[in-house]
Order: sequence, then structure tokens, then C-alpha cells
Amino acid sequence: MAKDKKMVEAITSMDEDFAQWYTDVVIKAGLTGYTSVKGCMVIKPAGFAIWENIQKELDRRFKETGVENVSMPLFIPESLLQKEKDHVEGFAPEVAWVTHGGLEPLQERLCVRPTSETLFCDFYANEIQSYRDLPRNYNQWCSVVRWEKTTRPFLRSREFLWQEGHTAHATAEESQERTELMLHVYADFVEEELAIPVVRGRKTDKEKFAGAEATYTIEALMHDGKALQSGTSHNFGDGFARAFNIQYTDKNNELQYVHQTSWGLSTRIIGAIIMVHGDNNGLVLPPRIAPTQIMIIPIRQQEEKVQEKVEEIRSRLAKDFSVKVDMSDKTPGWKFSEQEMKGIPVRIEIGPKDIDANQCVVVRRDNGEKITVSLDEVEKRLGEILEQEQNDMFAKAKAHLEAHITDCTDYEDFKNTVETKPGFVRAMWCGDLDCEMKIKEDTGATSRCIPFKQEHLSDTCVCCGKKAKSLVYWGRAY
Amino acid sequence: MAKDKKMVEAITSMDEDFAQWYTDVVIKAGLTGYTSVKGCMVIKPAGFAIWENIQKELDRRFKETGVENVSMPLFIPESLLQKEKDHVEGFAPEVAWVTHGGLEPLQERLCVRPTSETLFCDFYANEIQSYRDLPRNYNQWCSVVRWEKTTRPFLRSREFLWQEGHTAHATAEESQERTELMLHVYADFVEEELAIPVVRGRKTDKEKFAGAEATYTIEALMHDGKALQSGTSHNFGDGFARAFNIQYTDKNNELQYVHQTSWGLSTRIIGAIIMVHGDNNGLVLPPRIAPTQIMIIPIRQQEEKVQEKVEEIRSRLAKDFSVKVDMSDKTPGWKFSEQEMKGIPVRIEIGPKDIDANQCVVVRRDNGEKITVSLDEVEKRLGEILEQEQNDMFAKAKAHLEAHITDCTDYEDFKNTVETKPGFVRAMWCGDLDCEMKIKEDTGATSRCIPFKQEHLSDTCVCCGKKAKSLVYWGRAY
Repeated sequence: MAKDKKMVEAITSMDEDFAQWYTDVVIKAGLTGYTSVKGCMVIKPAGFAIWENIQKELDRRFKETGVENVSMPLFIPESLLQKEKDHVEGFAPEVAWVTHGGLEPLQERLCVRPTSETLFCDFYANEIQSYRDLPRNYNQWCSVVRWEKTTRPFLRSREFLWQEGHTAHATAEESQERTELMLHVYADFVEEELAIPVVRGRKTDKEKFAGAEATYTIEALMHDGKALQSGTSHNFGDGFARAFNIQYTDKNNELQYVHQTSWGLSTRIIGAIIMVHGDNNGLVLPPRIAPTQIMIIPIRQQEEKVQEKVEEIRSRLAKDFSVKVDMSDKTPGWKFSEQEMKGIPVRIEIGPKDIDANQCVVVRRDNGEKITVSLDEVEKRLGEILEQEQNDMFAKAKAHLEAHITDCTDYEDFKNTVETKPGFVRAMWCGDLDCEMKIKEDTGATSRCIPFKQEHLSDTCVCCGKKAKSLVYWGRAY
Repeated sequence: MAKDKKMVEAITSMDEDFAQWYTDVVIKAGLTGYTSVKGCMVIKPAGFAIWENIQKELDRRFKETGVENVSMPLFIPESLLQKEKDHVEGFAPEVAWVTHGGLEPLQERLCVRPTSETLFCDFYANEIQSYRDLPRNYNQWCSVVRWEKTTRPFLRSREFLWQEGHTAHATAEESQERTELMLHVYADFVEEELAIPVVRGRKTDKEKFAGAEATYTIEALMHDGKALQSGTSHNFGDGFARAFNIQYTDKNNELQYVHQTSWGLSTRIIGAIIMVHGDNNGLVLPPRIAPTQIMIIPIRQQEEKVQEKVEEIRSRLAKDFSVKVDMSDKTPGWKFSEQEMKGIPVRIEIGPKDIDANQCVVVRRDNGEKITVSLDEVEKRLGEILEQEQNDMFAKAKAHLEAHITDCTDYEDFKNTVETKPGFVRAMWCGDLDCEMKIKEDTGATSRCIPFKQEHLSDTCVCCGKKAKSLVYWGRAY
């Protein structure tokens, strides 16, 4: 693969220091930039274009299921935040408070939304009267604020971008259906578009969302063997509806509480893309989500023949792909390094000799494979190569995931595995909070999820030896 | 035109009480909804879908000029806001202050961005070193907060959605060019997509943006004859660059300050759409921006023949248009009223008799025209009808604008015109702040802009009689 000393040297090897490698990639690939606003992020064009592609495709998938977009206020009055007990307990310690508007103190302080359940409930309580007003499948794309102590770009920041869906339904069955539907929308999106395999399941009560009856999650495994919660979907039952008095008149003219859900996916997923696919040359973007899919790098670009052919190929490819040409005055080797650092899925190398032979060389970013392609069929072959790359990236990530799942039935083995082998540990659990707490204390691993696909590894809880209730994925996590 | 007593009665006539008519339309067309967060907005699906269409088309036009999207923090540390003197003076009285993060008071309070010049400057100061780093043409779609005392949906609210572009250039010429370019992007977009004619010009020093060298504006005229500032573009020169020390090394290896611009368009423009095109039956949306362009309303929808034909027509039209069918159990008359209230550009009425005659009836929202269309050419004819409606709406608004511009060369005449004839008054001005202040005090009219297209109405200032410098559009405004 192309090397350029100066650029490659600037990145820490992921095997030496994964955290530093991550920071280096984020900066060198131009995803985030400097800000003096502590704990907050500047997302630069290369990073934001990834988020735009995520938004576009996820929004399309939402709308296919009947979701509509809305915009809710940024602020939540303190009294509103306090209406649902578990919810306020979960969020109050980490919200930012607005106390002054203009030159005057506010009569009631407002928090900057950490999530918008209370705002949607306040709205739905006024909006929903009859069964005819249901369901409501609303979503918003916005930013939220949580006052984190330690922050890292994309993974944890005081403000982050996300979408939050908030739905209201006539029955408990419908809200359960919507909760699971959206989890699968997330899972399919992340697997198909981002080439990241996920484990789908339910959170334990300890790990569920503040105020939810049940939280479902997709869990991905990063290259370093740590888990990343990548999207969650919550069923609230009628808990919020009772706290906010959201009632409707049913067909028999009787008052009923609505049943609600919420679900969110954030810019955190960009952290997952980096940590699942990246390598020591930088970012590696899956073709389906890459803002630029093809970078054409001319050799001897000063020659008119090269310029003409490059422009011809660019314009042919631009019909089906997102393609750019690097005509800067850098050396080809430097351009190769930059294209690799930015994670652009393929580059096309083309010079006078290639043109004479009516061909170009396509280099895949994920595995460095060089493919000689006839210029007659450049559109068709690029389509095939990018599709193959997308599939191979998913297969590679899936193989990595599967190679990093260990089943344990014995607690010593469990502790030793968490300590020595990065990845998920699958083990049976009795369902008691005490065991969950003990495992976390002993190993640093938390319950990631109770997977939908249950298996029976043993009769007893890996921790306490009592009768086992469920198979659980455990792991250290971001 | 279709009437339905109950719905029509619910709207105040625009001639009786324009302000109440506006509020009624906003609510009855489902654009905004209830919130207990004072001065803030809930934008419901029908309203947000308009904004999504605005975003999509405007973003496309931005990107054609080389603009890239980014995301900047929501918060501005107080010390950062204070770096540019005019800017802080303009905005400090109306910002919301965050003083606590989680349970602890902040060391330095943060304001919620009222606009992001200071954040972009802070970023550019670190990002830009060489002439190779220029220009930077960045934009973000976000919400901003200004602590307004009196608020109205879309027109003035404490939080509103907008885009803000912030660019940095090597030379004063380039920043002037970009400032004007973006103003024309706004003007063309508003005229071509929203069918709203605008006056393009420069703001007086009194009316310009806090910290700008020059502010350019597009001014639209509402149905009631009041002006609405609909988009602005600012040239900062090197003022902010000096305050924030944003310097680059030029080709001669000398340090230079960058030159900057910013430009914004907000959800306020939705207020303009309502107030330019709306009528006593509700909202009227220009076809190019309408989330639903065609509503099919079946007559005798219980008949299988009708259902089949309606579905056939819907699926044929769905290839080129955004089309819906109203199959609810309401009467056709009720459905007509609803379609009119929501401003859907055309409805198609189709029943058994129409089907037998191989035709349907298309009713235009803007003028009530009924057009019989053969089912054989429904796609082609609908395309023509919608295009004609778009053009006619623009022509009608332009005629209204032109009929509400009065030229005055005498101050008594000027005062009388502002008082008795709604609209713009064109008059010559000496350029002195005193005259501008006096005119505002005497009449309530402010200088809307110094139009690009200058004319010579008289030799002297309409107010003081001194030598005139420029032609100015004056008017009462939202």
C-alpha cells in the first residue's frame, strides 16, 4: 500500500495505543476541529458529510415506517422535567441550566434538553384527544446536551447530534411493536449501510433508560474488543402517560392512557465506523456511507492527454458515484496517503502508460487490493468493486466479532476471559442486580444485552450459581 | 370554491383582523402546536415538512457554489462573545445564559448561541494558517436563541431554526463577492421556489448586523402591506479577523488578515409564505415547496370502481409528484375544506360519473379554477397545471408588490402615504442617521433597504431637504 512517511508517521499505531490512534484518525482525517468550548465538538466537513449521509438514509427508512419529522423546543422548564420521577433522577445530575434570559433572571430555570420525552409528553397531552389522533410517530433531528465530565470526539461529548423518535399508541401491543420495529430499523441500517454487525437484545433493568419499562439496544464490537452501544429503543408503557395525563377517548367512549416509545441514534455511530473499520493508515469508510467514494489520482497530471482522460472518466463515473479528482500540486504518493487517511473507499491511479493500454488501476482502501480495469467498462467494474468492498468489510467485521465472543460457564473463567481476551463474554445470569453489580465490580464488564436469540449455555448463573434465567452478553464498553 | 361552514367559520377573515387570521391559519393548517415552553415553538409535521423542502433545495443551491456543511457548538463562553465590541453590544441584551452544568456552577457562564460568528472565528483562528487554507465556505443548519419579549409563530420566537453560513477569504474583493452571491442565492430561491418577489438591496448603517461592515437584505411584502426581512448577507471585512486574530501567510510569506462573511435564512420565511399567498380559506402553498402537491378526493369512495381508479391514478402520479389520497370517512365537502386549509396546491375530484367519462376534475388552490382533465393525460396535465399555478402565484404576488410601492418626494406626502397606504414607500435620502430616526419616529416606517437598482426620484432628501444620496425603500415591517 502507498506510504508517505510524513503522514503515516503522524498516526500512532492502533496496536500500540488504541485511544491515541483514535484521536489521531479523527484529527488527521479532518473529521473534527478545534474549539475552545470545553467538552463540545466542531464537526468539520469531512465528518459532517458522513452524518448527512447517515441522516439521509436513516430518515428514508424511518419515513417508510410512517414516521414524520417535527421540531420541539431546545429548553425544558424545571417543573416539566420533574414530572416523571425515574426520568428526572436519571437526567437532573447531568443537565445544563439556563438561569438568565437577556439581562434578567428567569422566574423558572430551564434546562437544555438532554432528551425530549417530557417535551413530547407535554405536547401530546394537549394534542391527543381521541383514538383518531393515534398513533403519533414523530421524530426530530437535533442536538442534546449532557454535562459529561470526560469527553472524547463522537463517543462522549457535552453536546451531540442525534435523532430522537417519540411515539404514542392506543395499546401496549402497538408500542411494543414500534419499539422493536425501530430497533430492527437501526440494526439493519447499521449492518447494511455501515457494514457493522450488531448484537440485538434487551437491556437489563439496571442499564435501561431512565423512565422506561424496557430498553432495547444494538451492541457493536470495536477493533480493540470493547463494546459500543450504538442505538437504543425504549418502551415506556403508560408510565409517562400517567405522569403527564395523556389520555384519549377510545371507540367505546372511555378514557384510556396512551402507550409510548422513544428511540435514538447519535453521532456516536461515527465513532463506531472509525473503530470498527479503521486501520494504521487512517479511516476506512464503507462505500455506501462514504461522502466521496472514488478519488481519481492522475500520474503526470501536467500532460494534456492525462487531464482529458481523467475528466472523461470523472464525468462518466459521476453519473453513478460520488467521485473527485485530486489535481493538487502534491506528489501522487502524498495523494495516495491522503486518500487512505480520509478513508475514501477506492482510488483510481491513471497515467500515460495506463491510457495507452486503455486501462486504469483501482486500489481498494479496505485491503489494498490493486485491480486493473479496462477503461471501456470502468462504470460497471467500479460498481462491482465498491459492492464487493462493502460486503467484504461487513464480513471482516463479522469475523472479528465472532472471533471475540467467548462462552463462559465458570466464574473464574469468566473473570480471566474479561481480563485477558477483549470482546464479548456470553454467560448465563440469574436476573439479580447483585450479580450484575458484582460482575461489574470484579471485572469492569457490564451487561451489554439480553440477546433476542437466547441459548442455553448452562443451568446456573455464572456469578452466584443460582438458577439461570437468561443468556447475557457481557463486556467492557465505551 | 368548496365551503364547509364549520371549518371556514373557524378562521378569522384576513380583512377583519390580519394578525388573528395569521394565527388561525398557523394552527388550523397544523403548522405549529402547543408547548408550555414560553416563546418557543413546536413545529408539527405539516410545518416541518415545508422546512425540510426549503432545506433540501437551499442546501443544494449552496453546495453548487462550493459551500460545505459543518456543526459548531451550541454554547459560546462569555469571554468569546465579548471579543468583538459591536457584536457583543448587539447581542448580549438578548441571549440566554447557562450558569450551571449538572449540579455545579460553571466557572465561566455560557450563552446559548444567538448566532455563531464568534464560534467560527475561534475555529478559523486555529484552522487557517496559509493562503492554501482559503477560502472556507462553511454553513450549518441549526437553531439559535434570542430572548425576545413578544413572540409570534415563525415570525419571532425565542428559539428558531435557520442556516448560518460563515466564510473566510483572502481578499476584500472575494468576501464582497461572496456576500452578494449568497444574497442572490436567497433572492433567486425565494422567487423561484416560494413564488415571493423580493427587493434586493443594502441595509443602512443603522439597520445593519452587529459587527458587519455592510449588510445586504431581501425584503418581501406581505398581504397586509408590511415588509418582512427574509434573508440577510453580511460582509465583515477584516473586523472580526482583527478581533480574533485570524491571519494567514500569503504567497509572499506575509501575514494578512482574512476577510469574512455570514448569511442566514430562517423559519421566518414560512411566515412569509403564509402572509404572501394565504387567503380566507387558509394556507396556499407554492407547488414547488408543497410537501403534498396533489390531494385526490374520491366521490363515492365506497364503490370498488372508484377505489381501483383512484389507486391507479395515485400510483401513476406518484412517479413525478408528491400525491396523497384522502380515504377518511369524512364527506367530500369536508375534505375539500381541509385540503384548502392545508394549502395543498391542487385537488383531484373523481367519482363514478367522471370515471365513465374517462376524466377527473382538477381544482387549483390558488384561484379555485376547475379544470376537466382526461385520465389519459393526467400526468402531463398535472405537470402543466402545477407549473402554471407556481407562475401565476408569483405573478400575483409581484402585481401586489408593484401595486403597493409609492414614490414620494415630499415629506407630508410621505407621512400620509405610510399612514394611509400599506406597502413600500420609495424616497430619496441624504444618508444621515437623524433623518432615518425622524422618519421612524414620525411614521413607524424604517428603512428597509437601499436597493441595488438605484433611481433618481428627486435631488433632495425627502425628510430634511438636503442633497440626496440614495433611493431607499421605507416601510412598516414585521
